[in-house]
Amino acid sequence: MRIALAQINTVVGDIAGNERLILDALEEARGTGAQLVLFPELAVTGYPPEDLLLKEHFLAAARDAVARIAEACTGIVAVVGFPERTDDVYNAAAICADGEVQAVYRKVHLPNYGVFDEIRYFQSGPGPAIFELDGVKVGVTICEDIWRPGTPETEEALAGATLIVNLSASPYTVGKARRRERMVGQRAADAIATYAFCALVGGQDELIFDGGSFVCDHEGRVIARAPLFTEHLLVCDVDPQAAASARLRDTRQRPAARDLVTEVAHLGSFAVGGEHRSDSPGGEIAEPLDELAEVYGALVLGTRDYTRKNGFGHVVLGLSGGIDSTLVVLVAADALGPENVTCVIMPSPYSSEGTQSDARTLAANLGTPVLELPIAGPMEAYTELLGPVFAEREPDLTEENLQARIRGNLLMALSNKFGWLVLTTGNKSEMSVGYSTLYGDSAGGFAVIKDVPKLLVYRLVEHRTTQDPQSPVPPEIVSRPPSAELRPDQRDDDSLPPYEILDRIIEGQIEEDLGRDQLIARGLPAEDVDRVQRLIDLAEYKRRQSPPGIKITSRAFGRDRRVPITNRFRG
Amino acid sequence: MRIALAQINTVVGDIAGNERLILDALEEARGTGAQLVLFPELAVTGYPPEDLLLKEHFLAAARDAVARIAEACTGIVAVVGFPERTDDVYNAAAICADGEVQAVYRKVHLPNYGVFDEIRYFQSGPGPAIFELDGVKVGVTICEDIWRPGTPETEEALAGATLIVNLSASPYTVGKARRRERMVGQRAADAIATYAFCALVGGQDELIFDGGSFVCDHEGRVIARAPLFTEHLLVCDVDPQAAASARLRDTRQRPAARDLVTEVAHLGSFAVGGEHRSDSPGGEIAEPLDELAEVYGALVLGTRDYTRKNGFGHVVLGLSGGIDSTLVVLVAADALGPENVTCVIMPSPYSSEGTQSDARTLAANLGTPVLELPIAGPMEAYTELLGPVFAEREPDLTEENLQARIRGNLLMALSNKFGWLVLTTGNKSEMSVGYSTLYGDSAGGFAVIKDVPKLLVYRLVEHRTTQDPQSPVPPEIVSRPPSAELRPDQRDDDSLPPYEILDRIIEGQIEEDLGRDQLIARGLPAEDVDRVQRLIDLAEYKRRQSPPGIKITSRAFGRDRRVPITNRFRG
Repeated sequence: MRIALAQINTVVGDIAGNERLILDALEEARGTGAQLVLFPELAVTGYPPEDLLLKEHFLAAARDAVARIAEACTGIVAVVGFPERTDDVYNAAAICADGEVQAVYRKVHLPNYGVFDEIRYFQSGPGPAIFELDGVKVGVTICEDIWRPGTPETEEALAGATLIVNLSASPYTVGKARRRERMVGQRAADAIATYAFCALVGGQDELIFDGGSFVCDHEGRVIARAPLFTEHLLVCDVDPQAAASARLRDTRQRPAARDLVTEVAHLGSFAVGGEHRSDSPGGEIAEPLDELAEVYGALVLGTRDYTRKNGFGHVVLGLSGGIDSTLVVLVAADALGPENVTCVIMPSPYSSEGTQSDARTLAANLGTPVLELPIAGPMEAYTELLGPVFAEREPDLTEENLQARIRGNLLMALSNKFGWLVLTTGNKSEMSVGYSTLYGDSAGGFAVIKDVPKLLVYRLVEHRTTQDPQSPVPPEIVSRPPSAELRPDQRDDDSLPPYEILDRIIEGQIEEDLGRDQLIARGLPAEDVDRVQRLIDLAEYKRRQSPPGIKITSRAFGRDRRVPITNRFRG
Repeated sequence: MRIALAQINTVVGDIAGNERLILDALEEARGTGAQLVLFPELAVTGYPPEDLLLKEHFLAAARDAVARIAEACTGIVAVVGFPERTDDVYNAAAICADGEVQAVYRKVHLPNYGVFDEIRYFQSGPGPAIFELDGVKVGVTICEDIWRPGTPETEEALAGATLIVNLSASPYTVGKARRRERMVGQRAADAIATYAFCALVGGQDELIFDGGSFVCDHEGRVIARAPLFTEHLLVCDVDPQAAASARLRDTRQRPAARDLVTEVAHLGSFAVGGEHRSDSPGGEIAEPLDELAEVYGALVLGTRDYTRKNGFGHVVLGLSGGIDSTLVVLVAADALGPENVTCVIMPSPYSSEGTQSDARTLAANLGTPVLELPIAGPMEAYTELLGPVFAEREPDLTEENLQARIRGNLLMALSNKFGWLVLTTGNKSEMSVGYSTLYGDSAGGFAVIKDVPKLLVYRLVEHRTTQDPQSPVPPEIVSRPPSAELRPDQRDDDSLPPYEILDRIIEGQIEEDLGRDQLIARGLPAEDVDRVQRLIDLAEYKRRQSPPGIKITSRAFGRDRRVPITNRFRG
């Protein structure tokens, strides 16, 4: 049997555009001789549509699109994710065959943790369901359904399904692709069935859907794999008879099948005259990526998709000669082409010659357009205006923040005048402790590296530069101690613990919800723990007003971590 | 029987502070001779604690506080809301008597819609439960439990409870107090039981908990009511025997009680030697507020609580002489005292004499401190710097936004230097269509009127000024056509439909999720509908970076309305 997994890049709310993507992939799949083509979870609407799901006219538009897609399903069966509006609303899969929606499977397990809010919108489906295609029983599942052991996939296999398909929209975190393959491989071995995992690809606000669709056989071996971070039609020959024969030999599964009491819905039997038979099951197997290539790829895809899906062709950022804006400009140039990335160098009297010249060199090496806008003039205008009000007070963070805000204003003025998207350059370490200026360096439309801790920023720049025989990055950018350059001789470690300590505290508190004592038990200095925990708690008001950015860790700021601003609990 | 409802103003995460509030109210209740004292939902932690509930050490601190509170419970029974950590986590009520936590009730119905995310954190409780106090059977419920007809309160009443208590944290919207009383009154009449609704009061980020605790008798009549928007210990005598006698005469309830199959947990029997018997059931009955007084009260409480709970004593805002900043300064002065509200007048060359002088008069009448910071200097500095880049391009929104951003910078500089909280002055109509400057007029810590539509802004100013024999508001502020004053002779209705049309479209689209056709069927002009719907969709990126503000409508921007930024669906 030949199957095709359509790893497509949908846009939330673009029902007409998604319909075209689906119809194109359907056509291509039919051309390969596939009997079955799979699409991602909620492919018709994009994922996650959030509160659009509360609108009747949105659900009606999705329904109409599914009906049109089904009309095109002749000579092939398609399983298409969509939100089904009946008396309730379900996260559903339409089984399309012979020009009609023949049946609907409804997702059983609704995730309502982390970035997910599915119980806000959907009712759980009643349970397992299978359909028959050219004599092969196929079990249907949607995303979370296979992330918990047991129902519905277990029962579908026991009811005879030798192929379990999964329509997925699985948000990227570091190493997720590897964990998915391990888990699904084990599920396949347990159920003695071929598993086909069809994944969404693309960026949607804070989320990256990384793709990496794959098929594993009934012993859990990956026999086909699509690449990460790009659209792909993965075609794979599978051998359902091999699973059936393995079950004949398995002494555990047959009594369990006999004793199965759960009702497994039968969604219909279809024949598409699949004559294809391959001697060798399997398909193309893309190479997996190492961790840094994976993260870098996620940043590039996220930046490209946020920019283009929101109607921008050009981005602008402040290039300081520091490591953070270096990573952002590398990512942006790879995402959009250097000609579509304007770098703005905005020196103040506190900017060193070294950082300015490194910024110029970097932009020149990359071939991006550059603007230079020294900020001394506006600094003086503010000082003159505010001088009498501030009277005898010493300069403090106020004056530092004003510099950052002038730079933010200039970038936003360029954005307004020329229609460019402003990329911000703050990393996760800074976002955590509030080491940034609200409406200053945090001002912009998209925060590319907001979930990337500082030490990982360095590793990613190194990763990217070693890809290039001639690195565009002046080595001083990597070797110079980090500084915000907002007062003379400033260094980040004047105000913060070394990043080797800071990043470990942040990971423990944000990703693992550890308390003070647990962090200290890990060998982190008590004084640093207390100070950083307090800073993290107090900076929530800044994070709440920061632009969206790409989630790469197990807990990002944004929808993923919902904490009150008004909050007196520390740690 | 005498009961006390402790309508307290907790702070999220301030477990020690909340414990003190609870112990003080407990002491006061005991002093009145009450046998039973009720506290709001999650009183120990404040509501909603959001992702703090994912921290073991947070839950442990809450458990320890409940144990200490229980120790103080002698001679009185207390029902105290807290998050219970067992093998799972429950939104729970501790029944505290004889110095110990005697039993725990667990909330059955977990709201997971609108602003609520309770399924993210809690497991549902197993069902109805009652305890016995001085011979009276008391049914326990928490908030949402009584917002759906049926279980658990129905079964608790059928199992003999003549008093149903509800621990609540009910977010304010216009008219909510009235709807609550109607609903609970009907529940009481249906169940033939006295209902005691103990509500949280106070502001928490975007939410106002309005208080208005009340008791209604078994015929649904309100017999005691606490005021809205303020802490209060509501003491009420109830007559459980009256409900028992009414049930004897009711021919419907007795067969239902006989046929009850649901198991109703028994949480214990307690005696506190309550000797009190009153001839007349009831207690103090606060007057209800009319709609405008209610909304105004919510704004004042929300502003005061956000400011103080976040450690600020003083606020600052830009006073333009327009209606929006007028409402905000009135609210702020009422919330914090005029001496704690600094008004900043920041005229540009486009500011009219009239608005500037009205702003001065208003501030002088209110007695607030005033600063004047004309922005021409920074405007020139930016123009000079950006001139060569902008070259031949005509002035456009860029230059208007720069003015707003200079003002934002000045307010933030004052905030940084003096530790003041910046209040923003944008209303819901502007927020909806993006008629504001990101990092400009939307820059600040708290957006007092972000959920107040423009026409309601006018009505609230009128309401507030008619309270005063000598209105502080110059009449021109109300009568002048609205203008942002960012270019010569600008008026809001140059860019937007009249507010009479705009506010109706916004209400339909935001609060009711109506589509284009439904809005037009209401008589709204198709052209305006199309334009406004598009503007609403496109402004999501601005709203996502705006400060929190007070929810007063059925759907506010913020946690209440979760829509994607990247979204091609229109309407």
